[in-house]
Amino acid sequence: MKKGKATIHDIAEKLNTTASTVSRALNNNPRISDATKKQVLKMAKQLNYQPNNIASALRSGKSKLIGVVVPTANRNFFSSVVRGIEEIANNLNYKVIISQSYEEYDKEVDTIETLLSARVDGIIASIGKNTENFEHFQKVLDKGIPLVLFDRITDHLEVSQVVIDDYYGAYQTVQHLIKQGCKRIVHFTSPKKINIYKERLRGYEDALKENGIPFDPLLIEESNMQLEDGRQSMQHILDKKIHFDAVFSASDYAVMGAIQVLKEHHVRIPQDVKLAGFGNEPFTTFSDPSITTVDQKSIPMGRVTAETFFDLLKSGTNSVPQKTVLKPELIIRQSSQSPEEYKTLNFDQNDLTNSSY
Amino acid sequence: MKKGKATIHDIAEKLNTTASTVSRALNNNPRISDATKKQVLKMAKQLNYQPNNIASALRSGKSKLIGVVVPTANRNFFSSVVRGIEEIANNLNYKVIISQSYEEYDKEVDTIETLLSARVDGIIASIGKNTENFEHFQKVLDKGIPLVLFDRITDHLEVSQVVIDDYYGAYQTVQHLIKQGCKRIVHFTSPKKINIYKERLRGYEDALKENGIPFDPLLIEESNMQLEDGRQSMQHILDKKIHFDAVFSASDYAVMGAIQVLKEHHVRIPQDVKLAGFGNEPFTTFSDPSITTVDQKSIPMGRVTAETFFDLLKSGTNSVPQKTVLKPELIIRQSSQSPEEYKTLNFDQNDLTNSSY
Repeated sequence: MKKGKATIHDIAEKLNTTASTVSRALNNNPRISDATKKQVLKMAKQLNYQPNNIASALRSGKSKLIGVVVPTANRNFFSSVVRGIEEIANNLNYKVIISQSYEEYDKEVDTIETLLSARVDGIIASIGKNTENFEHFQKVLDKGIPLVLFDRITDHLEVSQVVIDDYYGAYQTVQHLIKQGCKRIVHFTSPKKINIYKERLRGYEDALKENGIPFDPLLIEESNMQLEDGRQSMQHILDKKIHFDAVFSASDYAVMGAIQVLKEHHVRIPQDVKLAGFGNEPFTTFSDPSITTVDQKSIPMGRVTAETFFDLLKSGTNSVPQKTVLKPELIIRQSSQSPEEYKTLNFDQNDLTNSSY
Repeated sequence: MKKGKATIHDIAEKLNTTASTVSRALNNNPRISDATKKQVLKMAKQLNYQPNNIASALRSGKSKLIGVVVPTANRNFFSSVVRGIEEIANNLNYKVIISQSYEEYDKEVDTIETLLSARVDGIIASIGKNTENFEHFQKVLDKGIPLVLFDRITDHLEVSQVVIDDYYGAYQTVQHLIKQGCKRIVHFTSPKKINIYKERLRGYEDALKENGIPFDPLLIEESNMQLEDGRQSMQHILDKKIHFDAVFSASDYAVMGAIQVLKEHHVRIPQDVKLAGFGNEPFTTFSDPSITTVDQKSIPMGRVTAETFFDLLKSGTNSVPQKTVLKPELIIRQSSQSPEEYKTLNFDQNDLTNSSY
């Protein structure tokens, strides 16, 4: 079957008119009569004519596409931010395409190339954990292409950024654990140089200091903070036989791993050890016990990020970079309740309305 | 700050040579001396020259981009399929961009336009639940653009497809529940006309028939099968006061909702009611009790889908559409164990190695 690629010239020839008349008719130009428009549309359909979007994008310089780079789209946090971005973008007739870096530096560099070759009008990105060189983002800026970073940001770029107050979220969480009677609080953090973990560690340290509790480096466990890392970190703490009464993990996945290991060792949660994570991933409501965590306001973050992006698109890239900081929210669940409260707590009904399902 | 858009002509002018020499040098043509190449590259860098990917894509007709349409990227199933696709694609130097339909027909139509305007070389898609008109996909086929569907497919298109054997997965699950002593098995399904739910219902019906258990329409609950839908369906069954001893849900999210409602009514799981879902979402291992479910072999499905896609790309779109069917796997966890087994089961250690974290 031959698939012809009809052009406006083919349509013009068939109708014995000019290409510019056809073009005007297709673009609904008021100078063209309705009868002609009808004829042109009919012939366009007959010839299976497809407007050349690429050429038209080249002319207008606008693809109406926003490229979003996320480490992985299946983290509830990232997918919710993307949802917030799409809400705003779609209202403005922009579309969103996603490219995943999988936390790999090389893949992240590729995502930028991928999105640029998809002709996006701009890029919104969250930086991978292993990225220490930001040249690929600098190139985007150098080309005058709008760029906004969210959550995982860097001081190495002069760029608009949207973050939550990680320090505040961590500080509130550790204050809560201390109020529950905890004094020996393990902290799971990442050795990576990205802002969010540094800020969460700072919040942990300041909450201890505020309460006159000495900082003990033996209680700090560094890892990538996936589920398996959390298991290993918890096992490592148990092996060291140091006393602890709580775990504050900078990641929900790692705290889930810690809970598994504690259960296997018949450590009672929250009676013997209280735990809190960070991120409010959906499984934190489903797990047994449900997990105290910090909600990162992901959909609002997506909306604000998109608004920042469109401001930039309007005002041009010479505008001064903005930094927006959103307040996260501590959500207290079973894993950190004191035993009395825990006994009466059956199912945290409130969580359901917060659920993204 | 002026941001110049340097062309190969600018480079040629500065170096007092021709644009075609510059172009050849940049394309590493062996006819050009290394010295000239070095000069050209240096000048290109100095002028911040960026090769015009759009123009070069127009010339070659290849963007090396694959567009993937998924209902939502944060379902573990879809994100794992995408991961499988990316594995194969990246090996072949292709990149993947994702566009989400959010199960909305209009958005799905938009995803196709979005990906085409991003100049993808082809599209891999899973159809939204609410799609009953497939014209947007037919258009892709009519344009001669390679298209492969996975999981959520349709008989209305002559197109290559990769699915799991939903019938087999459902049949195995219901057989398992019957072996555990269940006779009154509620089934959560969707009224939507997509293949997967029809096949799962057929597997449910055939397993009952095989065991001489009559089909009771009162036990069938139709919904969108999100968590909240599962809650409502379970409540509806309880309100009807009909006897039941098991729930087989065609979605993990709905079975999670059912478990919450049963717990609120102090129904013991699995002693009073046994439950099984479909999809092996990560939370099915974390929940209390952990949930019996069907693993859909999502990463292998992604790989096979990508291989089908590249076969199509190589052989051209006139090739005969292929349908590949993969076998899913029943994973038995606490929610469907008979009480004796349940008592000895503490934590399903095996699940950890299967976990995607």
